[in-house]
Amino acid sequence: MSRFDGRTPEQLRPVTIQRGWSKHAEGSVLVSFGDTKVLCTASATQGVPRWRKGSGEGWVTAEYSMLPRATNTRGDRESVRGKIGGRTHEISRLIGRSLRAVIDYKALGENTIVLDCDVLQADGGTRTAAITGAYVALADAVTWMQQKKLIRATAKPLTGTVAAVSVGIVDGVPLLDLAYEEDVKAETDMNVVCTGDGRFIEVQGTAEGAPFDRTELNALLDLAVGGCAELTAAQLAVLG
Amino acid sequence: MSRFDGRTPEQLRPVTIQRGWSKHAEGSVLVSFGDTKVLCTASATQGVPRWRKGSGEGWVTAEYSMLPRATNTRGDRESVRGKIGGRTHEISRLIGRSLRAVIDYKALGENTIVLDCDVLQADGGTRTAAITGAYVALADAVTWMQQKKLIRATAKPLTGTVAAVSVGIVDGVPLLDLAYEEDVKAETDMNVVCTGDGRFIEVQGTAEGAPFDRTELNALLDLAVGGCAELTAAQLAVLG
Amino acid sequence: MSRFDGRTPEQLRPVTIQRGWSKHAEGSVLVSFGDTKVLCTASATQGVPRWRKGSGEGWVTAEYSMLPRATNTRGDRESVRGKIGGRTHEISRLIGRSLRAVIDYKALGENTIVLDCDVLQADGGTRTAAITGAYVALADAVTWMQQKKLIRATAKPLTGTVAAVSVGIVDGVPLLDLAYEEDVKAETDMNVVCTGDGRFIEVQGTAEGAPFDRTELNALLDLAVGGCAELTAAQLAVLG
Amino acid sequence: MSRFDGRTPEQLRPVTIQRGWSKHAEGSVLVSFGDTKVLCTASATQGVPRWRKGSGEGWVTAEYSMLPRATNTRGDRESVRGKIGGRTHEISRLIGRSLRAVIDYKALGENTIVLDCDVLQADGGTRTAAITGAYVALADAVTWMQQKKLIRATAKPLTGTVAAVSVGIVDGVPLLDLAYEEDVKAETDMNVVCTGDGRFIEVQGTAEGAPFDRTELNALLDLAVGGCAELTAAQLAVLG
Amino acid sequence: MSRFDGRTPEQLRPVTIQRGWSKHAEGSVLVSFGDTKVLCTASATQGVPRWRKGSGEGWVTAEYSMLPRATNTRGDRESVRGKIGGRTHEISRLIGRSLRAVIDYKALGENTIVLDCDVLQADGGTRTAAITGAYVALADAVTWMQQKKLIRATAKPLTGTVAAVSVGIVDGVPLLDLAYEEDVKAETDMNVVCTGDGRFIEVQGTAEGAPFDRTELNALLDLAVGGCAELTAAQLAVLG
Amino acid sequence: MSRFDGRTPEQLRPVTIQRGWSKHAEGSVLVSFGDTKVLCTASATQGVPRWRKGSGEGWVTAEYSMLPRATNTRGDRESVRGKIGGRTHEISRLIGRSLRAVIDYKALGENTIVLDCDVLQADGGTRTAAITGAYVALADAVTWMQQKKLIRATAKPLTGTVAAVSVGIVDGVPLLDLAYEEDVKAETDMNVVCTGDGRFIEVQGTAEGAPFDRTELNALLDLAVGGCAELTAAQLAVLG
Repeated sequence: MSRFDGRTPEQLRPVTIQRGWSKHAEGSVLVSFGDTKVLCTASATQGVPRWRKGSGEGWVTAEYSMLPRATNTRGDRESVRGKIGGRTHEISRLIGRSLRAVIDYKALGENTIVLDCDVLQADGGTRTAAITGAYVALADAVTWMQQKKLIRATAKPLTGTVAAVSVGIVDGVPLLDLAYEEDVKAETDMNVVCTGDGRFIEVQGTAEGAPFDRTELNALLDLAVGGCAELTAAQLAVLG
Repeated sequence: MSRFDGRTPEQLRPVTIQRGWSKHAEGSVLVSFGDTKVLCTASATQGVPRWRKGSGEGWVTAEYSMLPRATNTRGDRESVRGKIGGRTHEISRLIGRSLRAVIDYKALGENTIVLDCDVLQADGGTRTAAITGAYVALADAVTWMQQKKLIRATAKPLTGTVAAVSVGIVDGVPLLDLAYEEDVKAETDMNVVCTGDGRFIEVQGTAEGAPFDRTELNALLDLAVGGCAELTAAQLAVLG
Repeated sequence: MSRFDGRTPEQLRPVTIQRGWSKHAEGSVLVSFGDTKVLCTASATQGVPRWRKGSGEGWVTAEYSMLPRATNTRGDRESVRGKIGGRTHEISRLIGRSLRAVIDYKALGENTIVLDCDVLQADGGTRTAAITGAYVALADAVTWMQQKKLIRATAKPLTGTVAAVSVGIVDGVPLLDLAYEEDVKAETDMNVVCTGDGRFIEVQGTAEGAPFDRTELNALLDLAVGGCAELTAAQLAVLG
Repeated sequence: MSRFDGRTPEQLRPVTIQRGWSKHAEGSVLVSFGDTKVLCTASATQGVPRWRKGSGEGWVTAEYSMLPRATNTRGDRESVRGKIGGRTHEISRLIGRSLRAVIDYKALGENTIVLDCDVLQADGGTRTAAITGAYVALADAVTWMQQKKLIRATAKPLTGTVAAVSVGIVDGVPLLDLAYEEDVKAETDMNVVCTGDGRFIEVQGTAEGAPFDRTELNALLDLAVGGCAELTAAQLAVLG
Repeated sequence: MSRFDGRTPEQLRPVTIQRGWSKHAEGSVLVSFGDTKVLCTASATQGVPRWRKGSGEGWVTAEYSMLPRATNTRGDRESVRGKIGGRTHEISRLIGRSLRAVIDYKALGENTIVLDCDVLQADGGTRTAAITGAYVALADAVTWMQQKKLIRATAKPLTGTVAAVSVGIVDGVPLLDLAYEEDVKAETDMNVVCTGDGRFIEVQGTAEGAPFDRTELNALLDLAVGGCAELTAAQLAVLG
Repeated sequence: MSRFDGRTPEQLRPVTIQRGWSKHAEGSVLVSFGDTKVLCTASATQGVPRWRKGSGEGWVTAEYSMLPRATNTRGDRESVRGKIGGRTHEISRLIGRSLRAVIDYKALGENTIVLDCDVLQADGGTRTAAITGAYVALADAVTWMQQKKLIRATAKPLTGTVAAVSVGIVDGVPLLDLAYEEDVKAETDMNVVCTGDGRFIEVQGTAEGAPFDRTELNALLDLAVGGCAELTAAQLAVLG
């Protein structure tokens, strides 16, 4: 059975990871998973938030947002509404947690890296594209800090790599990397964040329609682990 | 090996579900999982939000909040800060999704039920206690609506039951229903929402320390399914 | 003439003051005036707000809030609306002023006590129940600070006791401690805060219908002074 | 004993009430109590807020604010801070309640009058000056509506007059109409709103220092009733 | 051709500049351009915002606002709406920039002057009246600081004078100092801020209807330069 | 004399206008003026804001924003701060006014077009690049509406074209199209919006350092008119 765009169930959309997109940021990536395009910038600065001062440890955080017309119908700007929506909060927190899972705070020293993930065009899987791209921007920012001697030469702030992908069950079939058209029809939707060695950082599965059983959960996890491995390979390829 | 409070790894804390706590709400429950106490009220009203009018379908939503001194250290009120934090948003959304998973919107008709889950005292597992208690308040509100003839006598708006529990790995050991003292030490933390027949509505696992592998994930899911079954039994017992 | 619930005009509703409700707070009380239930917690911390630093004097403040379904009809959360309403502001300020009236700032030293008064169920007189309960929580917090040696052993931060009650004129009859059903019909509504020795800290009388004359004002003050004396006795009883 | 500005204890500051200050508003008054100057405008419009539509009844409300440099030290603008402070809320509500006490909603018909009281210069007693001035602006707006035939010719929306004054105990002496210099030293501070026939609309007494007893309360009420009578005469004089 | 109020095209409305309006502010002016009345206060304090500390340089900033009933129809308060509108922001920034153009920060030393421009009554040209009046208040505040020895006696913080006027094209005719009735009909609207020696600080021209050509632009600039010269004379006259 | 990047004073930076950047929006353009890159999307919908309903006329508005790391140093998100800054407001209003200057509301009918201009990378001139790009997106959205028959075939909603450019005086030399490095050093900064036939829609000149005289103003206007003509040619070229 082939999908609406001709993919097999276990096939990713075309993935591109363009490094060095921005002239200003210490790390910057324009990542695309099919028509989903996310601009990820890493801003590295000396110092840490007040609550962490004097700890000798660094901090990594993330903010996710969508341009108002990234989607098919224009959405109001959160700046205009004067508050951040629950979905935005949730995804920003997910990205931050995912990246912190591969950070050695001591090795980073009292430095902060902020990842901004702005969705320029959305077609499903924006949060997983954001995590996958943000990892590359983060790696570039860490390298930049080492070159600037802001981190000790022998320190290894990154303890591994991180990639993420969505999976879901559509018409009873488990599928990898859902496009928007599939996402809206999915009975179950899961986002999985993996390290490069195939372990889990985050597993978030939600029954959108009927509840799912253990067999379905296992099938989705299998797909996700395979997809993350491919994305890890793509990350390593662009990082040289 | 016994836990700090004498429990075995697969043991819940003492659970109480007190129905009819409030004289005003259509359904109200004071639920406790050990020292965690959450007041869950269900407010049933005729009519639905504007975007749903004319659909013939109902709506269920939830809001979660903590009293400022529910925790060991006083936290600022979100009303005073003028905005809702990401964690609050995230949990409110989780509770709402979990309960909607067992709602037949058509059978509910154009009625709305709002679940308010206010944590009076926190000791770990507030979101899972909230879901477990809110289900009972929701069931009482549905019954109230049927008694008031606001829902057809033959309609069955509830398609199942919902319970939730946290699980986690502490010092390498998978544990059920973490108390706060365990939660802060957990390497992996997972919240699982199940239907009464043992299927999954939501699985949210997060590596707080080291990433977790498939074997650990499976052990946690086993514990959670068992815990949810016990909670389901407790819910059915109080609902008579 | 007897009232809707069988009370005489000068009779309080059943009052309960349950100390030590919370495991976390330095002082905590669940107070009820009939069906009105307010959870009052006192959070004691070292240090004072910036504008008071170096003065050698402490600070006491209060925040009042209602759970959304404390009332007969659900109200929006102020955190969701993003701002605090005028009524909430007004009552928070009243509670703070009332308690500060019996505080010797010098004796308290540079410590702060915050009183949180959260109405779990409302049936008239929430602000007066809050003040009456908060005093007991405050007394417990002061004792806790003395036991922890955060206040000098010989210091007496509390210069007296505080209790409060509502009075009003319903169908031309002055009544003590109005329940909600009476409150909505009252022509005049007054909240009175007294010290244990019968003097006034705050007198707030409002004509809801026709203006009131000096004779009516005097009758209401007589009732209030009597009610506060009974509440003072109840406070002293629970404080041992 | 004479006061810092030469007044006797029962003497008002010089009071001026200038009608027709604004070319735009339906009623407008620049009122001064000594150096306290408040611009009160009444905006009359057809229609009522949504919750009152179809009732056949009108509505009157008020908003109070201070210019940032009305006081000795510049205060931040509430618009810049993005929220209204508790004091502002409290006073706006007091002014609205006071004026509504002399409004016959049925006679007003489904019309709304908004009173804006903006303090141009503050020297104590801003809220009482605002109420006293706003009454005159309100009366002018009612007259305007009658001239425009927006209210029936025979209707009498105003059932009486309203004036307000502050009283307080300074160095043990009860004083009328406190200037700022006296206000900051007052042990007890009371604001009293009276109708023209000497009855009470609002009595708000607060112990700033020591609690006050019944005798002191009575002395303050006597002063306030006398002061309000003088202010009523001034209002009637300018209204011709 | 004469204008609706009898003026010639190059004629200002009657201008009054009343110094020392407020007893509290270091500089204060009630300025009127015809029926437009703006209260401008200058608040001088020692110290500068955090980002400027240690620079040895001072700061001048401005805030503009309108009373809700300054206009023909009542507008909502920005404090009630919880945010400042774009127009208010724009004008506040314009006033601040205009005054900073004649400030020597070094000579001012680490002091801050805040100009508050509150429109009491609006009839067109509020921002230009505000700038013109604020300059006088600023000059008075600088003098006050010199008298208080907060600025060195020989320092000259003011490097020139500033005045502003609006010009526009109505029915094809370039006019000086538009009243509201003219402003709403203008095809082109321009605000010009000049120094006393006839140079430009700010030129803001906007086509409200048809675009304007170079000839029209030149005619407007000629009018504005003439008007600013007259306003400069008026400022110097009141400053003695 | 050549500029830091080798340009002559009257030379634009390389300009690119990429149409059809987004798959979702009715018009979308990625415009670059040198290193300044702005994504402009036009969202066309049927219907108009409430205040315009029934008028038979359409509406065009714009929102401008910067990604947090569009600049050399990361800026806080306005959504996180909960309010829109003055600069953002000012520029959004400028873009909207500029585009409305070439719109025939009647011909547009009761339709709305919203232009979102998001700065992906900033290097001076972001507002002028936004206007220039937004015009092309607007033209595409109008064409789309005509193809969808949402606008009458014979209607011409666009009455002309719009382009904008910045000019300024740096080290005494008038320059066209300032890059950031030049902008921060400019004594005078001016943004000029022209129609394709060389008339002015908006002229905003500001003295950042010394005031400017009429001769300098004229030199800047000459440069701007020339620059806008080149930009108009580029717009027409991409629109075919």
